[in-house]
Amino acid sequence: MGRDVITTADHLRNALDGRWRDVKNATREQLSTEVFKPHYTPNTVIARTKVAEQLRIMAAQGAAEDGFRKEHGGNGDVGAAITRIEMLAMSDLSLMVKAGVQWGLFGGAIENLGTERHHQAYVRQIIDLDLLGCFAMTETGHGSDVQSIETTATYDPATREFVIDSPTATSRKDYICGAAETARVAAVFAQLITPDGQNHGVHCFLVPIRDEQGNDLPGVTTGDCAYKGGLPGVDNGRIQFDHVRVPRENLLNRYGDVDEAGNYSSPIESTGRRFFTMLGTLVRGRVTVGGAAAAAARVALDIATRYALQRRQFDRPDGGEVLIMDYLVHQRRLLPLIAESYALQFAQNELVAKCHDLQTVEEPDPEEQRELEARAAGLKAIATWHATRAIQEAREACGGAGYLAENRLIALRGDTDVFTTFEGDNHVLLQLVAKQLLTEYADDIKGMSPVEWVRFAANYAGERVLKRTAAETIIQTILDTRQDNEEEGSLFNRGTQVKMFEDREEYMISTLARRLQGKSKEMDEFDAFNAVQDHVLHAARAHIERVVLEAFVAGIEACEDEEARRILSMVCDLYALSVFERDRAWYMEHRFLSTERAKAVTRGINERCRNLRPYAELLVDGFGIPEQLRYAEMLHPENIVDT
Amino acid sequence: MGRDVITTADHLRNALDGRWRDVKNATREQLSTEVFKPHYTPNTVIARTKVAEQLRIMAAQGAAEDGFRKEHGGNGDVGAAITRIEMLAMSDLSLMVKAGVQWGLFGGAIENLGTERHHQAYVRQIIDLDLLGCFAMTETGHGSDVQSIETTATYDPATREFVIDSPTATSRKDYICGAAETARVAAVFAQLITPDGQNHGVHCFLVPIRDEQGNDLPGVTTGDCAYKGGLPGVDNGRIQFDHVRVPRENLLNRYGDVDEAGNYSSPIESTGRRFFTMLGTLVRGRVTVGGAAAAAARVALDIATRYALQRRQFDRPDGGEVLIMDYLVHQRRLLPLIAESYALQFAQNELVAKCHDLQTVEEPDPEEQRELEARAAGLKAIATWHATRAIQEAREACGGAGYLAENRLIALRGDTDVFTTFEGDNHVLLQLVAKQLLTEYADDIKGMSPVEWVRFAANYAGERVLKRTAAETIIQTILDTRQDNEEEGSLFNRGTQVKMFEDREEYMISTLARRLQGKSKEMDEFDAFNAVQDHVLHAARAHIERVVLEAFVAGIEACEDEEARRILSMVCDLYALSVFERDRAWYMEHRFLSTERAKAVTRGINERCRNLRPYAELLVDGFGIPEQLRYAEMLHPENIVDT
Repeated sequence: MGRDVITTADHLRNALDGRWRDVKNATREQLSTEVFKPHYTPNTVIARTKVAEQLRIMAAQGAAEDGFRKEHGGNGDVGAAITRIEMLAMSDLSLMVKAGVQWGLFGGAIENLGTERHHQAYVRQIIDLDLLGCFAMTETGHGSDVQSIETTATYDPATREFVIDSPTATSRKDYICGAAETARVAAVFAQLITPDGQNHGVHCFLVPIRDEQGNDLPGVTTGDCAYKGGLPGVDNGRIQFDHVRVPRENLLNRYGDVDEAGNYSSPIESTGRRFFTMLGTLVRGRVTVGGAAAAAARVALDIATRYALQRRQFDRPDGGEVLIMDYLVHQRRLLPLIAESYALQFAQNELVAKCHDLQTVEEPDPEEQRELEARAAGLKAIATWHATRAIQEAREACGGAGYLAENRLIALRGDTDVFTTFEGDNHVLLQLVAKQLLTEYADDIKGMSPVEWVRFAANYAGERVLKRTAAETIIQTILDTRQDNEEEGSLFNRGTQVKMFEDREEYMISTLARRLQGKSKEMDEFDAFNAVQDHVLHAARAHIERVVLEAFVAGIEACEDEEARRILSMVCDLYALSVFERDRAWYMEHRFLSTERAKAVTRGINERCRNLRPYAELLVDGFGIPEQLRYAEMLHPENIVDT
Repeated sequence: MGRDVITTADHLRNALDGRWRDVKNATREQLSTEVFKPHYTPNTVIARTKVAEQLRIMAAQGAAEDGFRKEHGGNGDVGAAITRIEMLAMSDLSLMVKAGVQWGLFGGAIENLGTERHHQAYVRQIIDLDLLGCFAMTETGHGSDVQSIETTATYDPATREFVIDSPTATSRKDYICGAAETARVAAVFAQLITPDGQNHGVHCFLVPIRDEQGNDLPGVTTGDCAYKGGLPGVDNGRIQFDHVRVPRENLLNRYGDVDEAGNYSSPIESTGRRFFTMLGTLVRGRVTVGGAAAAAARVALDIATRYALQRRQFDRPDGGEVLIMDYLVHQRRLLPLIAESYALQFAQNELVAKCHDLQTVEEPDPEEQRELEARAAGLKAIATWHATRAIQEAREACGGAGYLAENRLIALRGDTDVFTTFEGDNHVLLQLVAKQLLTEYADDIKGMSPVEWVRFAANYAGERVLKRTAAETIIQTILDTRQDNEEEGSLFNRGTQVKMFEDREEYMISTLARRLQGKSKEMDEFDAFNAVQDHVLHAARAHIERVVLEAFVAGIEACEDEEARRILSMVCDLYALSVFERDRAWYMEHRFLSTERAKAVTRGINERCRNLRPYAELLVDGFGIPEQLRYAEMLHPENIVDT
């Protein structure tokens, strides 16, 4: 047999790679070249320089074209664009963030919120890095509640200019990637105020902030956020505007415009709805962040697993030392996280496909768009928390070696840490998911404050119907084979598992609706919301976990190799059982699980861990991480204890 | 009323401070001086220089005397010594580690494993920093299983020297604090081999490694571990020995000696027992590490709580923005961790007192000594994991601001990260606790490998009796008032809480013993151990949590102020309920909690969070962290959003 034999690892990798597997394979080759070799430095000057070099090479290789529409000079392959940026996380998360901001957020703002004049003037320059930008939304005083930002853009009809102003400490733009050093232009979000004094809500304006020499332009004061918990290559900074004037044309005017005289017009009447429609076009950012965090987690789990397969500690009865991967608790630390990584990858594939399909049509279906946004928000939250947990566990599982920079886990950890709170704080994102579930994707929900939302939800009469994802037919078939008896064997039945995920979600959402309605009769809206806030977050998680399980099931179905399917099925069991275990108290409290079956969950996990132990290396091989990107000094052959 | 009014915060602080409150107050003043102001730099040169300066100032102020016996030139106040080093964690964890290694581990090795010749020659120099040392135990290939280290010390009667040798990659001393740069002498742990070829197990030797100019001595090769996940001021390094000769007198010979001719003698016959007796004398290290991690967690929680009390986000129904501390989920994120911090502090106080009392008598009671070691191991594990979790939660609770170095959370997080795996990996430490519980502190257990231990435990007939800690009388009184009915109110009854902690522990230990005995009939010892390893860790945690609750109860009892006692009692409820919530699945599975009472646990936590909300600031005031040490840029008044 020749080199073309397809191994089980190849089948696993192909299954995990999904629709953009060719882009993934091409990116793997690219990232295997010298310039993308992972490196470590806490020194921001060195790290920023390195990232700039890498970005230039990427641009020269045409990495950014996919993210822009053909008519603007790109390739119009949204899925490929997201995939490519996600994968940078395996090399350097600073690079991923810089690329994501330049092409995804700054470029995306111009692409999606601008009109022809902006596309013609800027898209090519953005692709080629001839125009470096930043995305200036967050302010020191306003992170989660971006509708309340304070920076204003007041139209002056005398000069046909907008005057950008952020006079207070809390209105300062903060944490902005690129603002400290590289960006020449900022996409600034500000309250648009017309000469009649009316505030039309948040809009986006292109504001030059630096000259060619990198000096702040008049009225602009930038600052450097300096050292952070990670991402040394990202120049986060601050921008304060003191009556900075920009031409009327610098308003990205797709969703709202001001004519020369100062009259405002917009295709969307509601201020809140308009703003969230704008944000909705930028959903790609959240999709990429969740995907990148998951990619970083896979690298960490790969490294920790390979270490556990060479590190020995304490004697066996028959002499020799025990591989740490052979300890039950070590298996329990790593294998369920690997299983969750598999599960999240399948869900991410579906999300990227959905995002691609909606962003490559002229008029996306509004309901589909809202579902995409909720799913992107929820998966971003789950994937980034997973990354925090998985990388930390990987670090601890490698002991002192895991703490050394040369073994990469601490950089993965530090760099991804902020992912749980940027591009939307995870708690706020999960609330958004629950809101949309509760009100069955009714319009205008996203822009509501907790108070407005409770007022709405309490009066909302609609009965929610659980909506299955793409895999509808497959899931129905699987549900038909379920075993709902009380025997513990049924915990390994896929139909039973799916049913238990669905039941949990439905029960949580319907009881949440009832509780909200009840509370809002007894107290004001804020207190009503606050009384059930923990329930809100739990319900959102239950929803996303169900979507993830369904994606896993569909992913197994799509895999053509029998042995790979058999292994994936064990991994899927471990994922489902891990979710049950984490939430088994809830299942018992609500009579979905007897105490005996709950105990069987724990036994089932231990058993699956033992059964998957021989496949540990295969499972991380399936991640398909190029050798250069999963390197750690401690894995060097000379460090292997041979006994 | 004058300045001498004692506030509730003062009472809380005094209660938390415990027996060495005077030392704590003195240290607070010291740490409020300019040189101990927290700073941030990832640059190892700057950080190491700063720590060296701080250490010199501490030494000049007589900080180290307490740790050494009067007859060796110290003050013999072990509790004060531990307390002082723990508290450094609030300023800089690098400083805490450097001080801990120089005076606690290196100094402690000489103090406790050496004899008069060593005390006379070195103790004063160590106190004054005239002799800088390191503690070279861990090897690249041997971390948790230190009995298996490979470095050898072979006695050569011809020259009356020991020959220190570490010829392989895995026998290299690794991660050693001080080895990269500062240490002139290493306390090297090595297998002692006599001329007859016999290995007498691990002993400690003083080996000079650098000359006055800082150059490696002949046969010694040091290296620098360079960047780590934190602790930039700690110069961790590596040491390789190539037949390095030291005089016979350099053996720290309290527990084993070699005469000039090469004959070995020791007061302890068993090699394993001898080694673990030596390690036992160094228990102070673990006590300090757990205490320092908890101190760092308190700083992080203090900062995050104060931020939550000034940061507003989203509108209230009556206008204005909501303080994030007013959100239920935010309360749930911070308050239970604050409650756990209180709980751990009371437990730490008892542990330090026990350590002090045992280390200041000539012949400590062996059973008490073993109990001290188990408690130190268990509390170290629980406290360091608590720190990892609490600091991470604090970081996320502060959003983007939490990710900036200027707000200190990421340094606290990165610096303490390694605490879960150094001074004993937490999983291994919990196994040690369980081992000792199972075999009722029988001798010789500590040195056993999992295999040997299972062999022992399976044949161990003794029935275990739950042993209460110092608070025996108080606990018995409280137990007598318990309400064991099924009404949810009883969850707030202290007696019921204590009983539920005790029941869980006893049930877990006794079922563990039975399972181990059963398994060891069916399979070999390693497999038997491995089949129940998750149960082992859970049982150990249950034990430590019970000890912690008892300490909390005793701490409340000792507090003289009624209002402070009332608040402490609510905090204690929150701690107990949080433990129940985390483990409520187990309680239901084993019929200690009905599903209805389990649901009441969650309601009870939400209620306690709401009740404690008005005391949030008071609770962190009670930590008594000097203002300079709880500073973060984001807490600066100008960053407050005033609405």
